[in-house]
Amino acid sequence: MRAEIIAVGTELLMGQIVNTNAQYLSRGLADIGVGVYFQTVVGDNAQRIKESLRIAKDRADVIICTGGLGPTQDDLTKDVLAETVCQRLVMHGPSMDKIEHMFQKRGVPMVESNARQALMLEHSEPLANDTGLAVGVALTHEGTHYILLPGPPKEMKPMFDRYAKPWIAAQMGSVQPLYSVMLKFAGIGESQLEHELIDLIEAQSDTTIAPYAKEGEVAIRLTTRAASMLEAQAKLKPLEEEIRSRVGQYIYAAEDIALEEAVLRLLTEQGRTLAVAESCTGGLLSDLLTNVPGSSAAFAGGIICYTNRLKHELLNVPMEQLEGSGAPGAVSEETAKRLAEQILSVTGSDYGVSVTGVAGPGESEGKPVGLVYVGVASRDGETTVKQLQQFGNRETIKLRSAKSALYQLWKRMNS
Amino acid sequence: MRAEIIAVGTELLMGQIVNTNAQYLSRGLADIGVGVYFQTVVGDNAQRIKESLRIAKDRADVIICTGGLGPTQDDLTKDVLAETVCQRLVMHGPSMDKIEHMFQKRGVPMVESNARQALMLEHSEPLANDTGLAVGVALTHEGTHYILLPGPPKEMKPMFDRYAKPWIAAQMGSVQPLYSVMLKFAGIGESQLEHELIDLIEAQSDTTIAPYAKEGEVAIRLTTRAASMLEAQAKLKPLEEEIRSRVGQYIYAAEDIALEEAVLRLLTEQGRTLAVAESCTGGLLSDLLTNVPGSSAAFAGGIICYTNRLKHELLNVPMEQLEGSGAPGAVSEETAKRLAEQILSVTGSDYGVSVTGVAGPGESEGKPVGLVYVGVASRDGETTVKQLQQFGNRETIKLRSAKSALYQLWKRMNS
Repeated sequence: MRAEIIAVGTELLMGQIVNTNAQYLSRGLADIGVGVYFQTVVGDNAQRIKESLRIAKDRADVIICTGGLGPTQDDLTKDVLAETVCQRLVMHGPSMDKIEHMFQKRGVPMVESNARQALMLEHSEPLANDTGLAVGVALTHEGTHYILLPGPPKEMKPMFDRYAKPWIAAQMGSVQPLYSVMLKFAGIGESQLEHELIDLIEAQSDTTIAPYAKEGEVAIRLTTRAASMLEAQAKLKPLEEEIRSRVGQYIYAAEDIALEEAVLRLLTEQGRTLAVAESCTGGLLSDLLTNVPGSSAAFAGGIICYTNRLKHELLNVPMEQLEGSGAPGAVSEETAKRLAEQILSVTGSDYGVSVTGVAGPGESEGKPVGLVYVGVASRDGETTVKQLQQFGNRETIKLRSAKSALYQLWKRMNS
Repeated sequence: MRAEIIAVGTELLMGQIVNTNAQYLSRGLADIGVGVYFQTVVGDNAQRIKESLRIAKDRADVIICTGGLGPTQDDLTKDVLAETVCQRLVMHGPSMDKIEHMFQKRGVPMVESNARQALMLEHSEPLANDTGLAVGVALTHEGTHYILLPGPPKEMKPMFDRYAKPWIAAQMGSVQPLYSVMLKFAGIGESQLEHELIDLIEAQSDTTIAPYAKEGEVAIRLTTRAASMLEAQAKLKPLEEEIRSRVGQYIYAAEDIALEEAVLRLLTEQGRTLAVAESCTGGLLSDLLTNVPGSSAAFAGGIICYTNRLKHELLNVPMEQLEGSGAPGAVSEETAKRLAEQILSVTGSDYGVSVTGVAGPGESEGKPVGLVYVGVASRDGETTVKQLQQFGNRETIKLRSAKSALYQLWKRMNS
């Protein structure tokens, strides 16, 4: 089955945003054995959207459009598809109810154009939007499968994963389904990991090994086609065990969860709590932790001691340790240690984690951009400090530092 | 002049990398007044690259290809273009010398296929590669301009900026460049904003009005063609003033900066400092602020009082206000007020901002998901609390709450 992805949106053509949707969809389609042959981007222009659909119809079995489902005059994708397949647009009742309900709840009058988001094609199937208002569309016409998804990734991803992907898989019929295992790594880089596993990667056959990297985390996905879950497990198990025997110490989960979620689970299982003292990560570490639903069971909170004054006043770091000639400074092993121990004692938590470093763009205290110290203190053990040298821009250094702090804590809890 | 960008590479279709080149080129072309009408991605397959070039020729005056200029068998772009325009491939002497020199310097024998990187079309102009080996190509054939650039961004960007962009501009002759003004809004939704400006949007002619939305922020871009900056200003000014007369109170910047940056600039100008008390945003507000380089000049830090215990112990909120029957609870006007005032006094900052609410997925204290209170306290004024009802998933509610808090502070500083 050949697929084409059409992203609709003038903001993409003007270079205001990057088409990350195309990447997400291409990966997701690969998972179910659908190959993407073309990706197209077209502006919010009815004639050109129509032309793109016509070209795609000649060369693809599945056409997935993203964008252009919103309430404004610029949102044309449904109108154009309706015209292309000669179907009327009709109101999807449950979506309309949801829109009206939302406006009622907000206590503001509904602008008329919002009703457009509840439109679907006469003979199409609606795809529920669990994180937004515009309903999606799935439709087969003259042997071509069409899927319309919203443009914002927060709405597009869940709609695709929960509703569109299974719908496409169902149209595919008898091809054996794909099964996969995701192994997630921290504390090891992508190239190092690939180096350790290169012979396995080069020898892959019908069981594939695909490495993925996101900032601060690396994943490996093992995939195979099989008649059943049991058969798939029998095929994937030996490979997973070989990988574990080589680099098992870096695997923090055998499922696709973030490192912060793994850390929170471990804390919750052990009935322990965590508090953080953040300097150079500036709140990002706490933000990552609190993105996980239920994090309040184990994460107490923390102090963002961005200035030396707050390090001193809220976390009792002596000023003579922070400033003055010969002082270790804010970015130092001593300060990371003190911050971790103090956040523990100030909050009464079981674990205290600190991060202090130079996020850039300029150096600080004469120390280079990317130099970071992570401290881990606990009620029942020694405080440890890890010195790291991160690379990248300000936001990358913040993210890698936050992930490194999580990894240091995870290692401590597993030791 | 209409442009089309064709990115060549199976790794893009498999979702292994994101097509950031398309964004970079689109922006660069907009700078010189060339509109991109389509972006296409095609795999390393001669037949399909040829087909993409044929389609692009019918709808574009400039076709820019990225990728497929390397040494391997998969690198086909030059071969396909040569076939399309019926020209031979010839060796570009200086590029060949450079390749040979590089291998000599490394002291390794040159693999034959590397010579492919020095090929250009018989009647084309070479585009120098200052950061890599593969030479680029610029060519006009039957009225269509073709540009071939390497795929790796570190080679593509300098080649485009230094050589391709001026070459394209030279082909354009007398077309006037584009000028634009970006207006950024907070505190108003995209559909409400469009509603207020719908007559202007519908009446747009050679001066265009384009709304964009990102979480918690909305932007409008006014664009026109003109012979000079002065002439452009004369054309854009009346429109900008009309927009300001209607919705000026929501405009926080007339340039493309984030709300947190606008807030930090205002604080720095006024010589004032900010500290935050975050409950439901869990560190995100601080994270946004500290993503701005130089934020430490105005942002002191804060306390993430995720649990009631920390609200009580670190920020002196009375336990009887937080818990017990009849208590206002953590998510309440009273608690938001207290947190804002306490973070002010605990940190000695000029402004104190608090956020407390229900991020979900479940309700809390019997209060609905999305109910959020934002408090703003200052040394020299009354503490104000704004009640908000946010919608979306956990991360969206966090982000919108953080942006709302920034907006409330921005309003206070401007009042």
